[in-house]
This record gives sequence, C-alpha cells and structure tokens, in this order.
Amino acid sequence: MTQLESARAGRITDEMRQVAEYEQIPPEELRDKIASGRVVIPKNAARQFVPRAIGKGLCTKVNANIGTSPSRHDPARELAKLDAAVAAGADAVMDLSTGGDLDATLRSILDKSPVMVGTVPVYKAVSRMLAAGRTCIDLTSDDIFDEIEAQCREGVDFITVHCGITQNTLQVLKGCGRHLGMVSRGGSLIAEWMVRNQAENPLYAQYDRLLEITRAHDVTLSLGDGLRPGSIFDAQDRAQISELVVLGQLAQQARDAGVQVMIEGPGHVPLSRIAMDMKLQQQLCGQAPYYVLGPLPTDIAAGHDHIAGAVGGAIAAASGADFLCYVTPAEHLTLPGLDEVREGVIASKIAAHIGDLEKGVAGAWDRDREMTAARRGFDWPAVFAHAIDPEKARAMRAQSEDHDKDVCTMCGDFCALKTYGRALEEIK
Amino acid sequence: MTQLESARAGRITDEMRQVAEYEQIPPEELRDKIASGRVVIPKNAARQFVPRAIGKGLCTKVNANIGTSPSRHDPARELAKLDAAVAAGADAVMDLSTGGDLDATLRSILDKSPVMVGTVPVYKAVSRMLAAGRTCIDLTSDDIFDEIEAQCREGVDFITVHCGITQNTLQVLKGCGRHLGMVSRGGSLIAEWMVRNQAENPLYAQYDRLLEITRAHDVTLSLGDGLRPGSIFDAQDRAQISELVVLGQLAQQARDAGVQVMIEGPGHVPLSRIAMDMKLQQQLCGQAPYYVLGPLPTDIAAGHDHIAGAVGGAIAAASGADFLCYVTPAEHLTLPGLDEVREGVIASKIAAHIGDLEKGVAGAWDRDREMTAARRGFDWPAVFAHAIDPEKARAMRAQSEDHDKDVCTMCGDFCALKTYGRALEEIK
Repeated sequence: MTQLESARAGRITDEMRQVAEYEQIPPEELRDKIASGRVVIPKNAARQFVPRAIGKGLCTKVNANIGTSPSRHDPARELAKLDAAVAAGADAVMDLSTGGDLDATLRSILDKSPVMVGTVPVYKAVSRMLAAGRTCIDLTSDDIFDEIEAQCREGVDFITVHCGITQNTLQVLKGCGRHLGMVSRGGSLIAEWMVRNQAENPLYAQYDRLLEITRAHDVTLSLGDGLRPGSIFDAQDRAQISELVVLGQLAQQARDAGVQVMIEGPGHVPLSRIAMDMKLQQQLCGQAPYYVLGPLPTDIAAGHDHIAGAVGGAIAAASGADFLCYVTPAEHLTLPGLDEVREGVIASKIAAHIGDLEKGVAGAWDRDREMTAARRGFDWPAVFAHAIDPEKARAMRAQSEDHDKDVCTMCGDFCALKTYGRALEEIK
Repeated sequence: MTQLESARAGRITDEMRQVAEYEQIPPEELRDKIASGRVVIPKNAARQFVPRAIGKGLCTKVNANIGTSPSRHDPARELAKLDAAVAAGADAVMDLSTGGDLDATLRSILDKSPVMVGTVPVYKAVSRMLAAGRTCIDLTSDDIFDEIEAQCREGVDFITVHCGITQNTLQVLKGCGRHLGMVSRGGSLIAEWMVRNQAENPLYAQYDRLLEITRAHDVTLSLGDGLRPGSIFDAQDRAQISELVVLGQLAQQARDAGVQVMIEGPGHVPLSRIAMDMKLQQQLCGQAPYYVLGPLPTDIAAGHDHIAGAVGGAIAAASGADFLCYVTPAEHLTLPGLDEVREGVIASKIAAHIGDLEKGVAGAWDRDREMTAARRGFDWPAVFAHAIDPEKARAMRAQSEDHDKDVCTMCGDFCALKTYGRALEEIK
C-alpha cells in the first residue's frame, strides 16, 4: 500500500508518525491531508531514511539538484555535493546526471543520501541511446518505461515525468509566440521524440502504465512542467497554462489510482504574478503539492540567480508553494560546484523560512523570536545557533577585531541597543 | 535656489536636464515631480558630479554604507569600498564613520566620490565629545547644528537627521512593549541626550534652524527612522508609526521651506506587511521619496542578510520604495569588507531592478528582453553584457570546460533550447 492508500484506509503509518512529530502536527491531521492529496511523503517503499513530507500546512521544503554533466562526471564530486546540500539543510536532492556512469552515480547517491532522492528517468534512457550511437528519437515506449521501472526498483523516491507535453500542448506552444521556446531538458527531449516520431507522448498516452509502476514502489510522481517559462516574457502564456491544465487532470488520475503526486512549476515569472501562479495551480490541480524552480522574477541576475530565486521563492512559498527547487549562482552559466550548491541551498532555506513565517507553520516564528532574544541579550552563541547558517555567521563575526567583546566592529561603542538601554531606564 | 525652489519657479536646471536624460523622461515631468516633492536630487550646491534623482517614476536607486568604526579606521580601506560600491553600481554612498580621523575620512570620500554622499552628522558630533573625554550628553544644541553646518559647507549631499524622536514618540516607545528596543545608532544617541538632559530633541525643537542651514547649501534632508523595528516582532508598532507621522509633518515643513526631503524606513518587516508599509509612508508623507534599509523579512539570516534584504527590497521597491540602502552579508555581525560591500550592492541592484520591472520604469523590461534574446541566440558576450554583474557571470562561465563552445557544462548536448529548436521546425 502507498502512503496515500494507507491514509485513505485510515491507517497512520510509521512514516506519518515520524513526519507528524517533525512538523509538530497531530498524525491524524497529516493522514487526512495525505488522503486528500494535499500532502505527499516521497519515500520509496524499499528505501530506509527519516522521511519528510511536502504539502499544505507543513514547512516549506528545499531540493538541491546535483548530478554529472557530459563534461563533468566524477561521481565522488556529486557525493560531496550531496553532503554539502544536506549539511546546509536540503530536504531532498535530485540526481540529474547526464554524463559518465549514470547507474553507478545514482546507486551511490541512493546508498548515501539521508534525504529523499528524485530523478528525471528520461535522461538516463536518452543517455543510453546516445552511448549506443543513436538518438532520443530511437527510444521506444518500452525503453522509457523499462528505465522508469528500473529506477523505481533501484529505490528512487520521486520522479519527474513530463506527461503534460502532448500533441495538443505542443500546438498551443507553437502558436503562442514564445520568446525562449522550451527550457526544460526532459520536456524538450520528449517533444523532439513526439515530433520526429509523429506520435503522442508515451508518458501521457500510457499514463496508466506509469501509475502501475510507481504505485508498486510508492514512488511519488512529480509532474514536470516541460513548458515552463524560461524568460519573464513567457510567464503564464497559453503554453504554460494549457500544460498545467493537463497536469491537473493527471494529478487527479494519480490520486484516484492511489499514487502520490506533486506538480512542478516555473521558472521565470514577474514578481507581481508569482502569487497568482500559486493560486492557479492550487485551483487547477486540486491542491496537489507545488514544487517550483525559483521562480526568478528577473532574467538578468546571472551569477547571482540564487538571490533572484530567493526573492521569487519567498513570495511563492508565502503564496502557497510547498517545495522549492534551489537555484545556484551557477544557474544559466555552468554546472554548480560545492560552493554554489551550498549557497543555493542556503538562499532557498531563507526563502522557505520567510514563506513559513507567512504560512504560520509550527515553530517558524519561534526561531525569529529566539534570535531577537539572543540579540537583545548580546548572546552571540545563541545568535549563531538560531541563524539559518550558523557556520557562516560565526566565521563572519570571527573576522571582527572585537569578537571576544560584547560589542561588534560594526558599531563598537556606538551600539544602539546599549545606548538605548542606558536611556530607557531614565524615560519618565 | 534649491532644486525644489527652482522647480517651483518653473526652471529646469542643468541637474534636472542630466537626470531627465538618464531616466528617459521629459525634463518638464521631472521638474514637476521635484516641485511637488515626489522627487529629490541630492546634490550639494558646492559639489560637482553627475547627479541622480530619487523618487516617483524613476528607477530605484541603491545606497552603500561605508565608513570606519572605532576598531577599524583606515581611510584607505573606506576609499577602496567606495570604489567597489560604485563599480558594482551604487548610486550613493553614506559615510557612517565613527572611528579614526573623521574629518579626513569624509573629506577624502567627498573628493573622490562620483556619486552622491550622505552622512549622519550626529556621529561626528558625538565622536568629538568622546575624543574630548566627554559623552553625548554633554553636547549642546549649538554643537549639533555647528557640526551639521560644517558638513553642509564641506559638500555633503544629504544628511540623515533623527528629527522624529520626540519626547512624545519616546513615551509611545516606552509603552509599546518592544522586543528589541532601538537599533538606530543616531536615534539612540539623540534619545539618550534627550532623556539625560530632560529636553526636547534639538533637531525637532529647532527644526527651522536645520531647514535654514540645509536650504543654504541645497542639502537634502533624509529624515531618519530612529524607531525603526530591529526585529520582525516590532514591525509597525505604535512607536514606529507615531514617528512616521511626525516625519510626515516635518517633510511638509521642509517642502514649504524649499528644502528637498526624503524619509527613511525599516528595517525588519514580515513579508506580507512590506507593501503596506510603503503605502502608509506615501499616505503620511505626501509621497516624499522613501529610503528603506532592507527591509528584512526574517531575523535569522545572519551571514546572508543581503539575501533576506533582496527579498524585502524587491517587494518594497515594487510597492513604491524609491531608494534601497544595501544590506551586506556582514550585517549584524561585523563591519563589511570589500567583498561584502560588493555583494551587498549587487543584491540590492537585483532587488531594485525587480522593483523597476513592476514600476514599469523606462528601459527596465528592455534589459530582460535583451537578455532573453542573447540566450535565445547563444550569444554569450551579450549574456554577460546584459547581466547585472557581468564580471561574475563571465568568471563563472569561464570555470566551465565547455566555455568556448556554444553549449554549457550544465546541460552539454542535453541543451533544451537546441533540442526544442530541432523539434520546432517539425511541428506540423
């Protein structure tokens, strides 16, 4: 039984119990949210780790994309990124490898990861073709589903599948005057396959087959947004929204089949339209958990896209997004290294926490309250302890000549809190 | 005549002409906005540099705070920060020095800065007292006004003065149950002076004297928010808002006297209340330009407060803030070094630009349009040129093994744009 089927049957699983404790909510409440599809616990039935859930009423989760590329494919490097991402607070990683020994890389990440692991199975299916001197066009439906099944057996917890690219949504895309076409790797591969083979997307046409495989392993579906905007000019165009309508239909079918499902979202979106995107997704997808990439409210922050992503992610989370895929400073430029992974996770954690303050999730305000108390009391160890990134806060303060005093080099004797403290006693 | 008086008289000054050209708006429109107090051109009548304006309908400006502290007071270091801030795109710097030879430091910054320079004159007045073995309490009104006059003569373009701390607002503060008291250095010094001397704030009681001095040099007043919240728990409490009411009254008096004026704002503010803060300021202060510090929507991002500040600053700018004071990664921890200055300015520039997209200021959308076109065409030099930080974008891509090809190490042959490009030709 999947977590969804258990919840529907009224059962509270061990995973639900662990999650409810972590989230500080009653297990019954969590179970009911899972039963209605508003919360998922992405955890392969065969894998052992402390589970986390994603969805309504829970704290916002953060995913870090790791994985090799054709020109950088050292698995050890990706394991180091896994460690860095988890140490910085990532709740999930996705292995998006496209270079080197893909099987070994995924196997080692699954073995080592203490958090949920997601993949985009079509990458590996296509890579196998390329390695055999063929192209993605030569894939058969069976190749695709065999790869998905293999990864589900291997222990993957959630998979991104671009089921919403259909002959119909491609027609909409063609006619809607996009500025930047398709920026989804998996989506574009599926589109090329469909166009060259003049056939419907197998992930859509044989969606029941996908549900059967994922249900057997309780792998959570993450319905990919192949038509997400890659420029703020393309945000919420007819292509994106027509795909979202399809994803809403497919999410309903998944829930009906007992399969846990979440929806992926943009991408590049102007600031004032981010909240609207979140509300529309809830409406069209029956409140399925929403997993967004960014969003980025500007296209020109290359080298600092983690900052643009934090702006968009904070607003998205505050408006209902449940799961933030990090954006690193390397986005749009190169594959992230260790430093970029770390910076990307921290930026997303900040965004997630700002969102959690707005969502009012359990414990969120307590963290800021404790920080305020630590500052009021000049309790530096507590300031570090309550920071999202204690290590960086400690290192930065250590640069200060005054770091062993109860002042800082920023203000020294001009400390407002102290001056005010002296004055306050006297206010009549 | 001040810029405000010239505008009221219907004159278009050279400064207005330069600003109008930069902002791509008609000089008459700019003049009318200056006449109504919605725009200021902070530029001392005695100083020569290319002026920038701040206010409604213009692009959002960014300020970088530099200056020594009691334990770090090498003027050369501050000049290097000035260079770094301007190179990164700062439109203004404030010399907030509190250590070392304050006169020489300010003099060298004024000599070298190609952008407007602001100060908080009370710092220097108090420092002189401390150097003489006395305290801020020993200051006389004349000491304070003499220092202000000296700095106006010296060429400062705008000054922060905490005129809104009054015996009345201190009473409100005392009764409103603040979590983190006062976090404004200048404000707390004024408060201590008032309390110990049992006297009204001279900057409030003798406001006409302040107006006379600043009008003579066309120095723009930046009415400081001494009661800004230093914790999200203190946002928009009675203390902050009662001070804002006073600042609104004083802004009106300044405009009536022909003195250019802007208002300073928070601080720490929960995300969903940032827009409200901007609207309230416009309402209470007659649309005077609003100069905000952050805002920070969470208290726990120490070490990465530039990211929290970018989140708050983007929303503030989108909601009407005109001028963003940067926040660096060193905020709350230590005096920023060169790297932190640079990171702080870039983060604020990203926030300002996101705000400008929402404000629809001239040219803002063009930058993203050009970036999108550059990406569509795999035109890497154009991608760098259109980025907010071309240097970082170029350096990051240079790390990529594929940097001389028209692909990137992120996707290699899995490039979505290329795959889609191939597919698109075939869509029937």
